[in-house]
Amino acid sequence: MNVFGESHGPTVAAVVDGCPAGLQLGTGDIQAELERRMPPDPTMTSTRREKDEVQILSGVFEGYTTGAPIAMVTWNKDVRSQDYEKFKFVARPGHADFPTRVKYGNFNDFRGGGRSSGRMTVPLIMAGAVAKKLLRRFGIEIFAHTIQIHTVKLDLQLAHDVIKNNAYTNSVRCADPKTAEKMREAILKARSEGDSVGGIVECIAEGIPPGIGDPFFDSLDADLAKIAFSIPAVKGFEVGLGFGASAVRGSENNDPFTVRESRIVTLTNNAGGILGGLSTGMPIIVHVGFKPPSSIPKEQRTVNLREMEETSVQATGRHDPCIVPKAVPVVESTVAIVLADHCLRAGFIHRVLGEKSLGN
Amino acid sequence: MNVFGESHGPTVAAVVDGCPAGLQLGTGDIQAELERRMPPDPTMTSTRREKDEVQILSGVFEGYTTGAPIAMVTWNKDVRSQDYEKFKFVARPGHADFPTRVKYGNFNDFRGGGRSSGRMTVPLIMAGAVAKKLLRRFGIEIFAHTIQIHTVKLDLQLAHDVIKNNAYTNSVRCADPKTAEKMREAILKARSEGDSVGGIVECIAEGIPPGIGDPFFDSLDADLAKIAFSIPAVKGFEVGLGFGASAVRGSENNDPFTVRESRIVTLTNNAGGILGGLSTGMPIIVHVGFKPPSSIPKEQRTVNLREMEETSVQATGRHDPCIVPKAVPVVESTVAIVLADHCLRAGFIHRVLGEKSLGN
Amino acid sequence: MNVFGESHGPTVAAVVDGCPAGLQLGTGDIQAELERRMPPDPTMTSTRREKDEVQILSGVFEGYTTGAPIAMVTWNKDVRSQDYEKFKFVARPGHADFPTRVKYGNFNDFRGGGRSSGRMTVPLIMAGAVAKKLLRRFGIEIFAHTIQIHTVKLDLQLAHDVIKNNAYTNSVRCADPKTAEKMREAILKARSEGDSVGGIVECIAEGIPPGIGDPFFDSLDADLAKIAFSIPAVKGFEVGLGFGASAVRGSENNDPFTVRESRIVTLTNNAGGILGGLSTGMPIIVHVGFKPPSSIPKEQRTVNLREMEETSVQATGRHDPCIVPKAVPVVESTVAIVLADHCLRAGFIHRVLGEKSLGN
Amino acid sequence: MNVFGESHGPTVAAVVDGCPAGLQLGTGDIQAELERRMPPDPTMTSTRREKDEVQILSGVFEGYTTGAPIAMVTWNKDVRSQDYEKFKFVARPGHADFPTRVKYGNFNDFRGGGRSSGRMTVPLIMAGAVAKKLLRRFGIEIFAHTIQIHTVKLDLQLAHDVIKNNAYTNSVRCADPKTAEKMREAILKARSEGDSVGGIVECIAEGIPPGIGDPFFDSLDADLAKIAFSIPAVKGFEVGLGFGASAVRGSENNDPFTVRESRIVTLTNNAGGILGGLSTGMPIIVHVGFKPPSSIPKEQRTVNLREMEETSVQATGRHDPCIVPKAVPVVESTVAIVLADHCLRAGFIHRVLGEKSLGN
Repeated sequence: MNVFGESHGPTVAAVVDGCPAGLQLGTGDIQAELERRMPPDPTMTSTRREKDEVQILSGVFEGYTTGAPIAMVTWNKDVRSQDYEKFKFVARPGHADFPTRVKYGNFNDFRGGGRSSGRMTVPLIMAGAVAKKLLRRFGIEIFAHTIQIHTVKLDLQLAHDVIKNNAYTNSVRCADPKTAEKMREAILKARSEGDSVGGIVECIAEGIPPGIGDPFFDSLDADLAKIAFSIPAVKGFEVGLGFGASAVRGSENNDPFTVRESRIVTLTNNAGGILGGLSTGMPIIVHVGFKPPSSIPKEQRTVNLREMEETSVQATGRHDPCIVPKAVPVVESTVAIVLADHCLRAGFIHRVLGEKSLGN
Repeated sequence: MNVFGESHGPTVAAVVDGCPAGLQLGTGDIQAELERRMPPDPTMTSTRREKDEVQILSGVFEGYTTGAPIAMVTWNKDVRSQDYEKFKFVARPGHADFPTRVKYGNFNDFRGGGRSSGRMTVPLIMAGAVAKKLLRRFGIEIFAHTIQIHTVKLDLQLAHDVIKNNAYTNSVRCADPKTAEKMREAILKARSEGDSVGGIVECIAEGIPPGIGDPFFDSLDADLAKIAFSIPAVKGFEVGLGFGASAVRGSENNDPFTVRESRIVTLTNNAGGILGGLSTGMPIIVHVGFKPPSSIPKEQRTVNLREMEETSVQATGRHDPCIVPKAVPVVESTVAIVLADHCLRAGFIHRVLGEKSLGN
Repeated sequence: MNVFGESHGPTVAAVVDGCPAGLQLGTGDIQAELERRMPPDPTMTSTRREKDEVQILSGVFEGYTTGAPIAMVTWNKDVRSQDYEKFKFVARPGHADFPTRVKYGNFNDFRGGGRSSGRMTVPLIMAGAVAKKLLRRFGIEIFAHTIQIHTVKLDLQLAHDVIKNNAYTNSVRCADPKTAEKMREAILKARSEGDSVGGIVECIAEGIPPGIGDPFFDSLDADLAKIAFSIPAVKGFEVGLGFGASAVRGSENNDPFTVRESRIVTLTNNAGGILGGLSTGMPIIVHVGFKPPSSIPKEQRTVNLREMEETSVQATGRHDPCIVPKAVPVVESTVAIVLADHCLRAGFIHRVLGEKSLGN
Repeated sequence: MNVFGESHGPTVAAVVDGCPAGLQLGTGDIQAELERRMPPDPTMTSTRREKDEVQILSGVFEGYTTGAPIAMVTWNKDVRSQDYEKFKFVARPGHADFPTRVKYGNFNDFRGGGRSSGRMTVPLIMAGAVAKKLLRRFGIEIFAHTIQIHTVKLDLQLAHDVIKNNAYTNSVRCADPKTAEKMREAILKARSEGDSVGGIVECIAEGIPPGIGDPFFDSLDADLAKIAFSIPAVKGFEVGLGFGASAVRGSENNDPFTVRESRIVTLTNNAGGILGGLSTGMPIIVHVGFKPPSSIPKEQRTVNLREMEETSVQATGRHDPCIVPKAVPVVESTVAIVLADHCLRAGFIHRVLGEKSLGN
């Protein structure tokens, strides 16, 4: 998989390599996923409004994937680059401006964060849409929800079906309505104070058979961790109990095995479905932690890179006070990409799905 | 980099590819790092005693690396495979036995956990020793310490020099003696109760210049996260404030930029030295969370894979009640491996270090 | 580097990853190379006429490369897919139809050869244009010419300057006018007889410093050989004397070293500039052999894949009686891509070319 | 797959990654292949006599591969490094000494050619032995023979069975005894004149199903070409008719398809079993061209790298007047490695071969 494009360039795009031939796929499949990322509540998000109409440029023929790379683009339209002229020389705190300029000798496209922009999650969604559809055909479902916004935590253990059905029914993507409302308030409060908040997304994958993953280095958790950090603003990743496992005893943390309907399962799932870098057959559960968006209306100290002098900066473009709700489908997408890849490597998903009749 | 070997096979080994020519390197350099992993306190660790004498098989000539792959092996000697015969058919809870057997059709070498064993951290240490020495030559220092064992947390903010100098002065590798003592007690208590505990390691890298990392997918944090999950028992990874950043405001989390001695630095380092997948020039700080060791003397429910019937299991081999102290240098090693790799990719470290005189 | 698209899909495109920041680049640079591939003599080539107007979608900002992936597309326009309907069930001899259909379960886009089409050399040219411009900045020049068409061989040893200046002055891309005329006749004769001819392209790279290449497996010649076989219709590759070296003695084949202006050079260059997988500093010389185009008006025996019965086939679409002239810049491009990549790996070309002023 | 070691270091070794679990494998399998490389006729080869006893260090348990990396080493014993002291400052013509020293700043292990030595074909053979055994289990046979030594060419078209059965019955590995005798004479004549000769090896793979290969860039022929150039002294590679296809018409070169026993085959096999980078199901046929060995007793002009002055050099160590006979199994091995890899990628060979009973 590869992505290209920039926030204020003509396009953001993904090229998916290795998708099996024979998967029914149309722009509708991609579009549906992109809409899950759309700002669900205008009071809580940036006013940049990209319709994000996807165009498939290759790899699909007569409604089915061909086995060739699938290139998908969306054309950037609602671009207001002038908002960024004033940041041309300024290292915005929390943003990648400074190290990016060092790395690329100031040649980087700085407008709107360029390639470090949240816009780059669009290609992740597009690629994830293909992966999700592929996985679904093999009985694998992936769904995520918001479990924390600022200090508001979801403190109920929700059934997976509840999460699956309710997460997208509100603007913060939390499956519990009461917690969702508190989360929404936390976002609006931060916004009203010219500030921003972060949060945590939980993602669950059901239906992965045991034994998927490629240790030593390409463990399933290792690749899930790696791709999580490709999402802008991610600072933490954990599997199952995660850091919580560091604070319990082995006798509490170990999941006892048992037999259910001739299948080996565990009674608990503190491991989050992964042991020794391999799937156990239990649901895979990961948490991805997001920092608060760096662009805030509040004034912040920083440096003018040209003058090498201190200055201050205030975000005046179109910014989200919290990107966690928009990140929920992005996390799903990255998890789907890794799982699809590993299921293909393991031979659980074949390189060709059936055979096309040569017809008449 | 590649590793091979098994816990109860003849060897565990690492092959380091891409190390520049011209680095002075001998077995002493590797040995010194291996000793940092040695059980510092016999009351707290497994009684397996491998001397772990490293042999360099390639890539070093007349005391300097040649630019060719460096193969390093240690020969397993203190092997008691009979301890594992009784687990042949049993899926030990928390261990990779079950998914490994599914993945490899029971052909895997199950003795001592095979390739999923903690013994495989020896190759990581050996490879890390080369990376550390290389980085040190370019002014980069990497050091780690234990910041949590079970529920005992280091709640002081220690100066980096204190961590560097004191972490290895006690058996739990915590730089604060009082906390260290409490951690030690937590381990011994768990041990006495036939149980085990996990913990958290913090690792710091000083001296990385800004702009290192290769987004979109090969970000510095992404690769650090990935390799962390190659270490057995890791369940969580975070950078800087990590999951803590999800609970604060943007105005609190953003690190203000300023100028110090003509260099751009940040006043705080909540980012842990990484923004947008690139190093900022500030110290890189990561946390790696370990679960408690899965092998415990306490009886646990599980399944006999041959009979597909429930049974119970008790660890009777040689096991650690806590592997965090031994993991401290392992975390350093994995961080060093990734940083060395990225510094090479960025051209900050050259492919050849100087030129060897053709002498007389 | 990656390519996507199909002969009769909306586009053929290339995504170049790893190009340094700071290279001046515009569509004109790409367009100029694409025109070198354009059918120079309408009597000798397919009548498909694609204007091949390149569009740069990413990776270039204010006239310079940014260090991000450079996506370049051309939109297919002159598509006559109906020509291919009749081949839907037929395995055209010499074409990839049969194995492609097996590999992709008939889901492949068979129109115009799909992804196996000669159209896919357009992305190679586009990527090569970037590589060539980059190499030129470091004093490396790459040029190719036709040295054989059917049985007509160039039997003069031309000076490199003659090749560089004259190859593109005639329609077959042979630097010697007399040989070129005979080659042209061979093509026209084949065409008039409803047949096709192949040939051999020689490519030369001047200015590569010694020591470039990454043995053991990523030798310079290994990567040049690999990419050559990505060009459709290639069946042979050799370096320097190539297969000719198999028929001479060591004393004849070895190139004696000497010193010229404080540089070590060889008196002859039978090695074609590569020893032990590394550049020697002498010009790199490779030969790439092309088979005759498989689509010919002559009737040929084959099989109807649906009926599994013998049938016959005659090409009636728009086909070239010889693709060697069009392949000359393609070979240059592939050589440029590999050399640019290896020069970057070796640090001979840096990741950033200078620094952009932050201006006013 | 990876290799490590040096000609005069302690070992030459291979690490094979990705071999399926469940392949019966022992040192005998590897040893048998190594013996096919052994100098069959002492009058024609170097007097260096390595017993090449292989040791398997990992990846095999109870006689079967486990799915983990298989490390195989042989220990160098018959080393006479003093032979090379005098070449320390001398760039031997035809050898990689000069570019290697430039690349590695003189830090390379120059003794016996270091990592550019023909000794490095031992790891290729060891890895190839695993690949061959794996392929054989799936009905794929690979065999090679010498078709040219100096100007002596095999001008008969031998049946595949004849090649398979007779190639190793004489010291030059040519399946036709008369041609073999002339080849032998060519080698002995060169030797007696203090010179060396090259030649060409043909390799055939039977049993590969259609559709194997991964265009665009990882075509089957592309990967076969790439690995061929990893073998020291290779200067040319071609598939099927190869460069010969450049001199015939399309109507002659195209292989007509037909149906035999419900399978689609071609009447001829000029394509050498590969079309569009994919296997056709017909035997794969490649030619690999070797230059004459560079080390010859004859005096040759060269340069002293320390003094930067002209000098002369004469090989006085132990050298082969022709390495083609020893290269025959090496070519087989490299072809096997690539085919095994591609059959695994295509899912034609599974990641696990059967299931091991959990026994009693």
